[in-house]
Amino acid sequence: MIRIGVDVGGTGIKIGVVDKEYKIIQENSIPTRTTLPFEEQLRQIADCVVSTVRESGFSVNDIESVGIGIPGIASAKTGEIIKCTNMGWFHMPFRDVFTRFLDKPVHIDNDANVAALAESVAGVSAGTSSSVFITIGTGIGSGIIINGKIWSGAHHIGGELGHVIFDLGGVECTCGNKGCLERYCSATALIRMAREAVSDHPDSMIIRSVGMDPDKIEAKTVFDATHAGDPLAEKVYHQYIDYLAQAIGSVVNLLDPEVIVLGGGVSKAGSFLLDPLTTEYKKYVLFNDQPLPPLKLAVLGAEAGIIGAAMLS
Amino acid sequence: MIRIGVDVGGTGIKIGVVDKEYKIIQENSIPTRTTLPFEEQLRQIADCVVSTVRESGFSVNDIESVGIGIPGIASAKTGEIIKCTNMGWFHMPFRDVFTRFLDKPVHIDNDANVAALAESVAGVSAGTSSSVFITIGTGIGSGIIINGKIWSGAHHIGGELGHVIFDLGGVECTCGNKGCLERYCSATALIRMAREAVSDHPDSMIIRSVGMDPDKIEAKTVFDATHAGDPLAEKVYHQYIDYLAQAIGSVVNLLDPEVIVLGGGVSKAGSFLLDPLTTEYKKYVLFNDQPLPPLKLAVLGAEAGIIGAAMLS
Repeated sequence: MIRIGVDVGGTGIKIGVVDKEYKIIQENSIPTRTTLPFEEQLRQIADCVVSTVRESGFSVNDIESVGIGIPGIASAKTGEIIKCTNMGWFHMPFRDVFTRFLDKPVHIDNDANVAALAESVAGVSAGTSSSVFITIGTGIGSGIIINGKIWSGAHHIGGELGHVIFDLGGVECTCGNKGCLERYCSATALIRMAREAVSDHPDSMIIRSVGMDPDKIEAKTVFDATHAGDPLAEKVYHQYIDYLAQAIGSVVNLLDPEVIVLGGGVSKAGSFLLDPLTTEYKKYVLFNDQPLPPLKLAVLGAEAGIIGAAMLS
Repeated sequence: MIRIGVDVGGTGIKIGVVDKEYKIIQENSIPTRTTLPFEEQLRQIADCVVSTVRESGFSVNDIESVGIGIPGIASAKTGEIIKCTNMGWFHMPFRDVFTRFLDKPVHIDNDANVAALAESVAGVSAGTSSSVFITIGTGIGSGIIINGKIWSGAHHIGGELGHVIFDLGGVECTCGNKGCLERYCSATALIRMAREAVSDHPDSMIIRSVGMDPDKIEAKTVFDATHAGDPLAEKVYHQYIDYLAQAIGSVVNLLDPEVIVLGGGVSKAGSFLLDPLTTEYKKYVLFNDQPLPPLKLAVLGAEAGIIGAAMLS
């Protein structure tokens, strides 16, 4: 038997055939075309599922289930897409429509939740029954696994760690509030901190390494300059690590998962991120004389979207 | 059949017989005597259970289970008390020792979790499968119910909403960190805010109503003066409501429970607290165009400790 994972993104929709060992054995993608009617979009996805399955050497009869991860909120129970702004989908009955084209069990969930599930089934947190997956990229996304299942809330709007208040009245957030956690812990936050720092220190390696153009500063710019011993970069890096440590300590104080998994662009810094965080976050845990969750780096990368969607049940 | 709930506190240990309708039909208490050996303390609890059951008209054979709530952390799985500072209990095998005196199924959990369970089974959140119970008192305690069960974490140290970072580098907390949520949302926080406010406004009703003695300001003092139209009190009250609203919005963004229950001393302000919070917290929810959890006041009060302990399983 095989499972199908569909990973919906702003530019493309990836469709993968996943085997019993959680490996993607065949993969295709179709462009995201939001101008098409909803039914037509789903028909194209279903067609692509069928052709991808055939390419994999299996038949449609072998499909156990089809799972889809979307950048928005959805009801796992009813199979309805509640809100998916990028796709222009609002209150769309995904399961009902999709099964007209392919009559299989259909499951749907948010993409961060799906990635969390993927890591907890087939990735770095495999074998655990609770985990919190934190994606550190442009924003902060998160997925919560409790007792082996995604917890996305009673109204499907949970798991938004990035919008927990972290600094009362602090930096303005894209959501309209102030002091949201992602304004301090995302790649965007690190870049903002670096830009602010270099404005007073035009001699810093951070800015020299990008040809004196602050718009070219990336998270990696700061990590590289820190690694090379630039004092300003070190200062920004330590501040950022401290923010992340406070965020992770808070997650442990509230949820205490078996493991915390870090993914997203910033996590590519690897042990340069993980090692100091592992030490520092414990300061912010109330019962830090007890066994605490280890921090681990996500291992499935971009494949998590397909694998996790395929694992939905 | 009956269930036994034991509520361990710093001054007394309450023992109650709870019937099928979740009513306490008989109750007794014994003084907390931390100088006694652990075994002797448990023998006294077991003796009191037996005599209380007999007074209730039932026999020891009718006891389905014994549950105990402690002000500390415990392993629901092994029945071990991990840490209960007030009682001087560290890594004590409660279940193993207690069953020597009374051979019944024994369950143990933290007291805030137990109160959360009580409300979700027999109180204001009865019939829901997920809830977050927030106790607003000297500090901020919380209990998380997911899929009908207490979620206290993989290492039994979760549910500490009061120590989530809420204001980076902010007010010093008793835990040693800065900016913990309870420094802004507890009764202690409200009193601190009122004291700070009156130092510049000795004409305020807040301070006049307590004979100009700032040490006598309580949460109720602020609520009463606000109700009476005192401008300074109104300012403090609105600030406090806004902090609580940001805290509740954060809980919804992360956990999105079916209902949020407010308990503890401050919740006695009733609709004066609940009504503005219900409106205000939605500003801080990311997906606030969706159905959101209602806020409700706890109804079981001090009985939650016994009823919830009896419901442990």
